[in-house]
Amino acid sequence: MEIRTPYCLFLGDATDILSIKIAKGIADWRPDLAIGEFGLPECSVTSGIKALSIAESAKAGAKTFVVGLANSGGFIDPNWIPSILLAIEQGMDIASGLHQRLDSIAEIKLKAEEYNVDLIDVRHPAQPFVTGTGTKRAGKRLLTVGTDCSVGKMYTSLAIEKAMRCQNIDTSFVATGQSGIFITGKGVAIDCVISDFIAGAVEQISPENNPDHWDIVEGQGSLFHPAFAGVSIGLLHGAQPDALVLCHAEQREHMRGIPGRALPNFQETMEANLQAARVTNPKAKFIGIAINTSMLNEATANRVCAKYEQDYNLACVDPVRHGVERLIGKLS
Amino acid sequence: MEIRTPYCLFLGDATDILSIKIAKGIADWRPDLAIGEFGLPECSVTSGIKALSIAESAKAGAKTFVVGLANSGGFIDPNWIPSILLAIEQGMDIASGLHQRLDSIAEIKLKAEEYNVDLIDVRHPAQPFVTGTGTKRAGKRLLTVGTDCSVGKMYTSLAIEKAMRCQNIDTSFVATGQSGIFITGKGVAIDCVISDFIAGAVEQISPENNPDHWDIVEGQGSLFHPAFAGVSIGLLHGAQPDALVLCHAEQREHMRGIPGRALPNFQETMEANLQAARVTNPKAKFIGIAINTSMLNEATANRVCAKYEQDYNLACVDPVRHGVERLIGKLS
Repeated sequence: MEIRTPYCLFLGDATDILSIKIAKGIADWRPDLAIGEFGLPECSVTSGIKALSIAESAKAGAKTFVVGLANSGGFIDPNWIPSILLAIEQGMDIASGLHQRLDSIAEIKLKAEEYNVDLIDVRHPAQPFVTGTGTKRAGKRLLTVGTDCSVGKMYTSLAIEKAMRCQNIDTSFVATGQSGIFITGKGVAIDCVISDFIAGAVEQISPENNPDHWDIVEGQGSLFHPAFAGVSIGLLHGAQPDALVLCHAEQREHMRGIPGRALPNFQETMEANLQAARVTNPKAKFIGIAINTSMLNEATANRVCAKYEQDYNLACVDPVRHGVERLIGKLS
Repeated sequence: MEIRTPYCLFLGDATDILSIKIAKGIADWRPDLAIGEFGLPECSVTSGIKALSIAESAKAGAKTFVVGLANSGGFIDPNWIPSILLAIEQGMDIASGLHQRLDSIAEIKLKAEEYNVDLIDVRHPAQPFVTGTGTKRAGKRLLTVGTDCSVGKMYTSLAIEKAMRCQNIDTSFVATGQSGIFITGKGVAIDCVISDFIAGAVEQISPENNPDHWDIVEGQGSLFHPAFAGVSIGLLHGAQPDALVLCHAEQREHMRGIPGRALPNFQETMEANLQAARVTNPKAKFIGIAINTSMLNEATANRVCAKYEQDYNLACVDPVRHGVERLIGKLS
């Protein structure tokens, strides 16, 4: 799934910064990919990108109109449709991470046919996959894994890729979720793939590469999450990681979405992930720990990371507070 | 996914007994569900069910025309279409386990609409699923797990269900693959579910039940298969099994479809499965081992099972040679 860049970011009628997290992710990580943002008059938030009309964005070269907001049902709000139609008339492809397919709305489907633009639903991968083989591929791979969902695996992966580029290391971020796909312009929403093909899809999006190239593969879920472990183990097998980074959100009280369910401890999380990873890469090892300490003050955050570092004998950082250079130093 | 019974089994133009394994599975395990079988003149094999014409089957009460054969592409052979159309005209639903959807053939789609019958593609689950929760459900559950794919998990599960019924134990076979679905008339082809919903789908097809009821859940894949482990761990989490049975095919030389990849040993297989199972059921335990010894003579088969029994301190049988009563004796 490849999305033509640059983008015009559509913010719709958003009034909550959390609802535009796709637009915000692009603005934060790839501001060069966004020509402009466009919100309806009711919109009260910004991604930080310059506001432009749809026509101005198109004129400035925008190739894809990204539905950069989400609502709780994952449907295309009727209020957004006129803007989508206008973007099509300006020759832009439309890309969405919503559950509802763009072509399920007849006006959008017909207009896209008329103007010969693509409708891209990143939650509905269109390409065919094959089943995994576990065959060793050239190139090196790092995978972020977690104690839980939503603990900072994408952020950590992007930070690692960025820091490696600064050190002139040959590297690519491999997106496996919708935000990551918009940020990098390609990838597969791995939790939307038919379960027979999870590992095979990961093999496909992280193919053979130069021996010194690093793919930084965005992890998903957790082996200990009772809903999403299938995705996590498929990623471990398909990515055949040389290096693993353990991600965790400090003060998370229970597994995401499941009150009362405790998080696994680091030791069991690392053992289970290593065991699974070694099915396709016997040399897999943890090179560090990334902690989201956003709930803590600076002094406590530093103390927590130092304690983990000592307990597990691995470099431990909060990527936001400390950067990830110390993790990269452990790659070989 | 529920399929109306009884069936008329369609054998098409099959000349190889392996290609009619769906029809054969139904004939072997649920002969009472099959009113008749129908093959084209070129067909040279039989499921063992009485041959009837399509009209005779309908007259005798057949509700569903089961495409009981498969070809290597998983497509609907043009040669089969006239029979399918005839079955529709006789008022039967059509059920298929092929990759190609029945409604992708315009003649079939139109005829089904005209006669108001259902087209059921078991490889394309139509019902919506929710994500798993891991919440404990009443009732007991047994899951078969394997060192590899295609080692006898369905056979073992069906044999256990049958033997338990003979002992008047309240039990249901829970089908998770296409053959199992046709045999039992319902279930979900779990490897065809979107990966976010693997565990959730299993929770849905094995819901809360009476405290003494046993669901015998058909396992799939292997935690050590580099393509299919996502399906296997989702089954472990969703089934929250009280009892596990390890299935293995003796003299299997490599993981299915992957020459050169060795099978895991029993110890690591059991440890990995227990660890995953205990995420949703801390009391999960292995109650026995089922070996497919079809490649061995009687004396060697008995010796192999006796050796495993001693090494792992678990009842070990070949379900075909020895029955599964000794496994059931270990349930509590």
